[in-house]
Amino acid sequence: MEIKLNKEDIKNLSLGAAVLGTGGGGDPYIGMLMAMQAIEKGKEITIVDVESVEDDAFVVAVAGMGAPVVMIEKIPSGKEAGFSLTSIERYFGKRADYVISIEAGGLNSTIPLATAAEMGRLVPDGDGMGRAFPELQMVTFHLYGVKATPMSMADEKGNSVILDTVDNYWAEKIARAITVKFGGVAWISIYPMSGKDFKRAAVRGSLTKEIRIGEAIRDAKKHGKNPLDALLDVTGGFLLFEGKIVDVIRRATGGFARGEATIEGLGDFRGSRLVIHFQNENLVAIRDGRVIASVPDLITVIERDTARPVTTERLKYGLRVAVIGIPCDPKWRTPEGLKVVGPRYFGYDIDYVPIEVAVKG
Amino acid sequence: MEIKLNKEDIKNLSLGAAVLGTGGGGDPYIGMLMAMQAIEKGKEITIVDVESVEDDAFVVAVAGMGAPVVMIEKIPSGKEAGFSLTSIERYFGKRADYVISIEAGGLNSTIPLATAAEMGRLVPDGDGMGRAFPELQMVTFHLYGVKATPMSMADEKGNSVILDTVDNYWAEKIARAITVKFGGVAWISIYPMSGKDFKRAAVRGSLTKEIRIGEAIRDAKKHGKNPLDALLDVTGGFLLFEGKIVDVIRRATGGFARGEATIEGLGDFRGSRLVIHFQNENLVAIRDGRVIASVPDLITVIERDTARPVTTERLKYGLRVAVIGIPCDPKWRTPEGLKVVGPRYFGYDIDYVPIEVAVKG
Repeated sequence: MEIKLNKEDIKNLSLGAAVLGTGGGGDPYIGMLMAMQAIEKGKEITIVDVESVEDDAFVVAVAGMGAPVVMIEKIPSGKEAGFSLTSIERYFGKRADYVISIEAGGLNSTIPLATAAEMGRLVPDGDGMGRAFPELQMVTFHLYGVKATPMSMADEKGNSVILDTVDNYWAEKIARAITVKFGGVAWISIYPMSGKDFKRAAVRGSLTKEIRIGEAIRDAKKHGKNPLDALLDVTGGFLLFEGKIVDVIRRATGGFARGEATIEGLGDFRGSRLVIHFQNENLVAIRDGRVIASVPDLITVIERDTARPVTTERLKYGLRVAVIGIPCDPKWRTPEGLKVVGPRYFGYDIDYVPIEVAVKG
Repeated sequence: MEIKLNKEDIKNLSLGAAVLGTGGGGDPYIGMLMAMQAIEKGKEITIVDVESVEDDAFVVAVAGMGAPVVMIEKIPSGKEAGFSLTSIERYFGKRADYVISIEAGGLNSTIPLATAAEMGRLVPDGDGMGRAFPELQMVTFHLYGVKATPMSMADEKGNSVILDTVDNYWAEKIARAITVKFGGVAWISIYPMSGKDFKRAAVRGSLTKEIRIGEAIRDAKKHGKNPLDALLDVTGGFLLFEGKIVDVIRRATGGFARGEATIEGLGDFRGSRLVIHFQNENLVAIRDGRVIASVPDLITVIERDTARPVTTERLKYGLRVAVIGIPCDPKWRTPEGLKVVGPRYFGYDIDYVPIEVAVKG
């Protein structure tokens, strides 16, 4: 299977990526523009099935690291991520056969498409999260022992770094500090690995899933369907809540956008309250004092009428929203997975309960 | 000329380096132990004349970066600096023929000797400062357009980084942030350059000068001489003050140890006061309200009786000291040099006046 993406596909994929972004990961808009521009220039973006990646292929993830807000202010020329890819290729003395997404959510779902188009590489239909997460070690590759380094980092001025660390937590720690000095955004090429490792460790089917999600939302009305229902159908998700945002508290600590949003129920949820805790991404949803969803499962806030996802930056008083929960990839539900991205890692003193169980109470 | 250093030479060199360290750059003690250990293991430390370095030789500076205090707590195994050298050699695909000192003061005067001994390299009799300075771009190499990067950084845990920046100020900025994340100390290989560039840009004769200074202080009494007089003779320095420290104010800001020491005059200086401003190194000396010495000239505080240098960390109430000033290398007295290390760069609103003029008032 090979899919050559057209502009509609890119739009759908971006929208789907925003749903899987669970409020964080940045708006895929910039990456979408870059990818569409590449297509307009006659370049091709080709998605291939994960299974078709050769065992001995050289696979590299490409991403933007840092604050999405800064990424939008310092609009990338499209060359930056390619510069980091060239730099890691020079280091290894070989060409990356496949460029992959570190996460299937937010900005980093579309950036690799633009890079792949510019540099003429293929993109496998898989990623390292199946959603968005804030730290470099929070990928399924990490669970399978794949090293984040050697990794390269580049800024828009021409500074570059090659990092080689003793483990992936050190990669996160040092790369984060460099990103701050770069001015808030770095373009990185990371998790260089064999095709064999990629096939073993990836979350499969994430790009086509994004396209299907975007399509379902955008075409719902055409099919006489409510966009929210279409979204729940295509994701296998659960409706956690509907209501009006009545309070948003924000704290910027430790380089993350933390906070809580409180939603007062409407419709079937009248008389109830939902509190969402977020840290870049939505992490925990508490309905009337009971946890009904938590990381690593996906919690996404959408506009009630259009089912368009709302990022945590855009949460504000008065907004009428629905909140949906989507089961995460099973790789995250293992003891090793939960150690890396379970609620306790993020500082919540609760055990993870799979959303399909938690939501029923 | 080739000098094979023996243990006495190393002791003398360390003492001389502490004098040229102008209060900063760390105590050369650790590097001295490492160098002496190498000699005890039968390894050789050979100093060669700068002029004998071949034009096409590959020359690399090796240093510890960060807080000397941490360097003493995390005693290096002696392999760390070598690890950073190996890493930059791998990057360039060639062997460093010569290992050099970035500064002729403090710890970084002895670290390259230990590395050169361990790795079997020669050490030219020159460096990049002729004294100690706190930042990476504060070297004469910088004045001659030599790039600090590609540079390598390593910590004691096994993390490593290759940096390539658009200019030497960026190298300082990014490397400093990485050093903090490494835990306060990084081992770096920096300013990779040709023998031709090194010969053009180096401060020459600094290692043998250090040895002569140490020898002069240690052997003064044997020659029936006062150690302070011996020190002034061998350095061509000026006696700026003698007295008792009556006040020391310290502020740790921006990763630097800043502060002022006030000294009340004794002997010929009775009735006078000297205030020294420091920022890791001693930067400005003000006698009775008049600046009598400033960077880039050297200001060193020594114990009054023994002429042993006192680092800024060791300045304390009651200590009887002499303060000497030594003219810096002429390369620093150019407009370009003063832009990089003159008093204004350090935030003092004064013009540089060469010490031999300033001291006479």
